[in-house]
Amino acid sequence: MFTLNERLQADTHFVADLSLCKLLMMNDASYPWFILVPMREDAREISDLLEDDQALLLREINVVSSMLQQVFEPYKLNVAALGNVVEQLHVHIVGRFKEDKAWPAPVWGHSPAEPYSLEVAEEVLRKVKEVLSGNV
Amino acid sequence: MFTLNERLQADTHFVADLSLCKLLMMNDASYPWFILVPMREDAREISDLLEDDQALLLREINVVSSMLQQVFEPYKLNVAALGNVVEQLHVHIVGRFKEDKAWPAPVWGHSPAEPYSLEVAEEVLRKVKEVLSGNV
Repeated sequence: MFTLNERLQADTHFVADLSLCKLLMMNDASYPWFILVPMREDAREISDLLEDDQALLLREINVVSSMLQQVFEPYKLNVAALGNVVEQLHVHIVGRFKEDKAWPAPVWGHSPAEPYSLEVAEEVLRKVKEVLSGNV
Repeated sequence: MFTLNERLQADTHFVADLSLCKLLMMNDASYPWFILVPMREDAREISDLLEDDQALLLREINVVSSMLQQVFEPYKLNVAALGNVVEQLHVHIVGRFKEDKAWPAPVWGHSPAEPYSLEVAEEVLRKVKEVLSGNV
């Protein structure tokens, strides 16, 4: 049975369950930062997923990329499966700007998260879900 | 026409041309670090690739992941398309060890590359190509 890793749960806002993945938003207002977690037990690497699930993951990366570009208009996307700290397979999709505080370095471990206020989180999630509902 | 970015060329050893991607090895003996560069002009994001090319990219990520696990036996893979410094679309596939010098931080920007000696580079490339020739 799939159970979301506790740290991923604690650090994020829930956005939606897609076909394969739970979609989460990092509770860090520094960047538009989303995380796809395939709802498959014990997967650590992308290559642990069955071929059909890999194709679904790719599709959901595209859906989230497109949503992120539409809502936040970043200069660049960072798409990464790292898992050095949290081993449960998860894919980061982060919108980057030349003006963001880590640019051009990676965001992981760069600086402490700046949690969203409840009002801003709700407003961002509303926009994100609105765009996703046209695409998923 | 596809031309490999100059910085990618300067920082790597050429390994092979696969169906979609040029496979390169970073000239940094700190980690087993490979880079897939789709041979498509002007692609910046994974989502810029056509659907068939995305499927090929996924297949080649699997091939390189499997080779890397077989040859280097890392604890974890890091698979990432960042592109904040070099905009030409490229996917890093890095084998990570709990004993490597950046662990658990990302490798990008962590410390200066430690170039391979010619002898070691040749030996590593020989092993890599031997395993790839059974899989590609």
